[in-house]
Amino acid sequence: MFKLLAPAFLVVVSAAPSIAADAPSLSERYRGVSERLIAAAMSDTEGYERLTYLCDRIGPRLSGSAALNTAIAWSAEQMKSVGLENVRLVPAKVPNWVRGAESARMTAPYDLPLHMLGLGMSVGTPPGGITAEVVAVSDFNELAKLGRENVAGKIVLYNEPFRGYGPTVTYRSTGASRAAALGAVGALVRSVTPLAAQLPHTGTMQYDQAQPKIPAAAVSPEDAMMMARLIASGVRVKVHLEMGAQTLPDADSANVIGDLPGSELPDEIVVLGGHSDSWDVGQGAQDDGAAIMASLEAVSLMKKLGLRPRRTVRVAIWVNEENGSRGGEAYRAWLGDQVSKHVAAIEMDGGAETPRGYGASVDEPSRAILRDIARLLEGIGAGSITAQGGGEDIRPLMEAGVPGLSEQTLGTHYFDWHHSAADTLDKVTPEDFRKNMASLAVMSYVLADMPGRLAASPR
Amino acid sequence: MFKLLAPAFLVVVSAAPSIAADAPSLSERYRGVSERLIAAAMSDTEGYERLTYLCDRIGPRLSGSAALNTAIAWSAEQMKSVGLENVRLVPAKVPNWVRGAESARMTAPYDLPLHMLGLGMSVGTPPGGITAEVVAVSDFNELAKLGRENVAGKIVLYNEPFRGYGPTVTYRSTGASRAAALGAVGALVRSVTPLAAQLPHTGTMQYDQAQPKIPAAAVSPEDAMMMARLIASGVRVKVHLEMGAQTLPDADSANVIGDLPGSELPDEIVVLGGHSDSWDVGQGAQDDGAAIMASLEAVSLMKKLGLRPRRTVRVAIWVNEENGSRGGEAYRAWLGDQVSKHVAAIEMDGGAETPRGYGASVDEPSRAILRDIARLLEGIGAGSITAQGGGEDIRPLMEAGVPGLSEQTLGTHYFDWHHSAADTLDKVTPEDFRKNMASLAVMSYVLADMPGRLAASPR
Repeated sequence: MFKLLAPAFLVVVSAAPSIAADAPSLSERYRGVSERLIAAAMSDTEGYERLTYLCDRIGPRLSGSAALNTAIAWSAEQMKSVGLENVRLVPAKVPNWVRGAESARMTAPYDLPLHMLGLGMSVGTPPGGITAEVVAVSDFNELAKLGRENVAGKIVLYNEPFRGYGPTVTYRSTGASRAAALGAVGALVRSVTPLAAQLPHTGTMQYDQAQPKIPAAAVSPEDAMMMARLIASGVRVKVHLEMGAQTLPDADSANVIGDLPGSELPDEIVVLGGHSDSWDVGQGAQDDGAAIMASLEAVSLMKKLGLRPRRTVRVAIWVNEENGSRGGEAYRAWLGDQVSKHVAAIEMDGGAETPRGYGASVDEPSRAILRDIARLLEGIGAGSITAQGGGEDIRPLMEAGVPGLSEQTLGTHYFDWHHSAADTLDKVTPEDFRKNMASLAVMSYVLADMPGRLAASPR
Repeated sequence: MFKLLAPAFLVVVSAAPSIAADAPSLSERYRGVSERLIAAAMSDTEGYERLTYLCDRIGPRLSGSAALNTAIAWSAEQMKSVGLENVRLVPAKVPNWVRGAESARMTAPYDLPLHMLGLGMSVGTPPGGITAEVVAVSDFNELAKLGRENVAGKIVLYNEPFRGYGPTVTYRSTGASRAAALGAVGALVRSVTPLAAQLPHTGTMQYDQAQPKIPAAAVSPEDAMMMARLIASGVRVKVHLEMGAQTLPDADSANVIGDLPGSELPDEIVVLGGHSDSWDVGQGAQDDGAAIMASLEAVSLMKKLGLRPRRTVRVAIWVNEENGSRGGEAYRAWLGDQVSKHVAAIEMDGGAETPRGYGASVDEPSRAILRDIARLLEGIGAGSITAQGGGEDIRPLMEAGVPGLSEQTLGTHYFDWHHSAADTLDKVTPEDFRKNMASLAVMSYVLADMPGRLAASPR
């Protein structure tokens, strides 16, 4: 089923020309078309119907899984069914981590099953599991203070409260190897979430190749706090951890792309999308099913309205954002020199709560242009433009100089659900979904149609 | 360990005399003592330390469990350690429902484990479980419309969204028998909670003895919504339900009571407390560990401050509120005619979020008195007095004419945690715990010391 699109254009452009004095008029120029797109989005039902199918009928879709293959094939069909052209799969080899059976129990001071989820890419335990005393730390400083004499042979529990995703996720990403460096035999990480609802949140981790690979799992905030309290009160806590996780040979997978070819400059491309893969729990609704279905329907709306911008608008459903970034890298590699023809890349990977606008890694004049365009989105509350855009799927494009935008939402509850069994369809309201779709439709249309193009921020 | 207190006073009073014109001065009269109690409560650490021990060291304590016995014995010790007098256990036989191993899986249209908790007092399934098609209804009207021809042999899923505890809990309480009346073989109930976090919430149910007893379980809101969506889209959903639940012979248990005897009218009693039992998941922190530990410490504070009101203040830790109400009934029966000497009963069983005041089932003049007393609590935000007080533990007292008050909190998140694995210590903030303790201390002290007594609302 994999088709490779031979790179047809090998033109290398030197620097992306930015727009000059006509820019401030964009919001006026596109007022009419944006109102049509927004109205169509706000009454759309097909997008949410597709999201419902993806969530309820295909379900979670970890890289390497059969469900992901189904989602990819089905996505390609959907693109064709709405009339996108050049629908194709761009092959990517993806990591094939499988969870296997897993559990954790506190075995001292009493027996209690823990709410756990192994971290993605973790090794498993030996058969029969491991049992060890737990040492609890709030951060890496405390770990360092404990030192090897207190850590060797133990399971390290990182009980770091949520202080925003960026500052907190480092314990999930690197905690196992930093504990292993002091001789720990396992790592437990308080789930990276502000919500304590006995819900473990998984996510990927990386090993420092210089350290022994020890098994690592997330536990619910409650379980982490409880064990930390017991330990702080002088009680000896032991945990039995059993994980059947293993990493199989890389699996064949693919990005899915489809185009609404431009009317004047079809080789210039605005790409928008998100990622097909999810974790293996929940339904991958907020992360990132809503994004790919909203992107697809955003472009479908242009077709339905008979709109065709000057440049091509491409929907990209990248693969393997969660635990490898192979999709974004494969897409970049597949483009070759054509990457210079990408005038903008828009990634939606922050959930589908009420949209508020875009983060954009562009230069100052381009940001002014975006602020002008964003006026068209003020009516749906999405008129904000902030610095710093991007996303794991479009990172390779941005590294090649493509201006990158991240669709942004209020994100009030995103990390309540993120990477957990609770990332399910009910978390995406039809109203918010439509607003995101509207925002994507307007932004991608204008970027594809406007006279000039954005320039990436200086690197 | 059980000691019976022989009823010593058999005086029957006709009607509780209510207070007259001196009432409006109560808030002035008790300003000084209330400020001392509140200050002591707001700097107290012992109460929360005891709650921590109860949650982390004793844990969940379902009626009939060994942990409940531990909690009861430990509570009596704690009462003694703070200097309460007449500490004793009032025996009660309690239902002994045990969950056993349980699970539920959706088996069609695909295989998916469900997030479930059997309902308290449910029968189990036959060994090996049951597998049946699921019919979904939003309410009893829809069930009736389906009729026996569509329900017989099926599992009924009640997918009623949370519309407040009272209106919604009826599906949990009576849904199984109402489904059984139409031939259903099992009942699944969307958890009675406003929060969808893949967390099942248990709770008790009752069988209509005229109907076959079918197994009943709660499922997470997400799982309920998901199955209902699939069914609504025409997909046939099947579930395999396996529950090892059984009800063993009643177990010996007890209420724990302890007094701060009154200085002038020691046979007149203000009783305050909550219940020792909890569900068998989580830690019973909000429901109702915080209440019993706050009640105990509230009276301990009076001792520490050298305060002794005219009447006796009694801390009561009733048993079996969750699935039988046997503790409250046993206490009432044990009192006999002495119940008339109870001048007020205060139950705290609405969690330990920020207190806002009291609901009170008293007559109008008494409500005015309470409003006056509640002025003393305005500084901690707990100055509200509303009609309708009570609680399952003090219901039998109220039925005997005792004025009943329920300590009330904001309750913002109470039903997010209620009866679930997430009812853990972290949900009780020390600050809110102290405010509840302060509120209980002031209200119980004034009611025990003031010149007159409240009168219950006319029945």
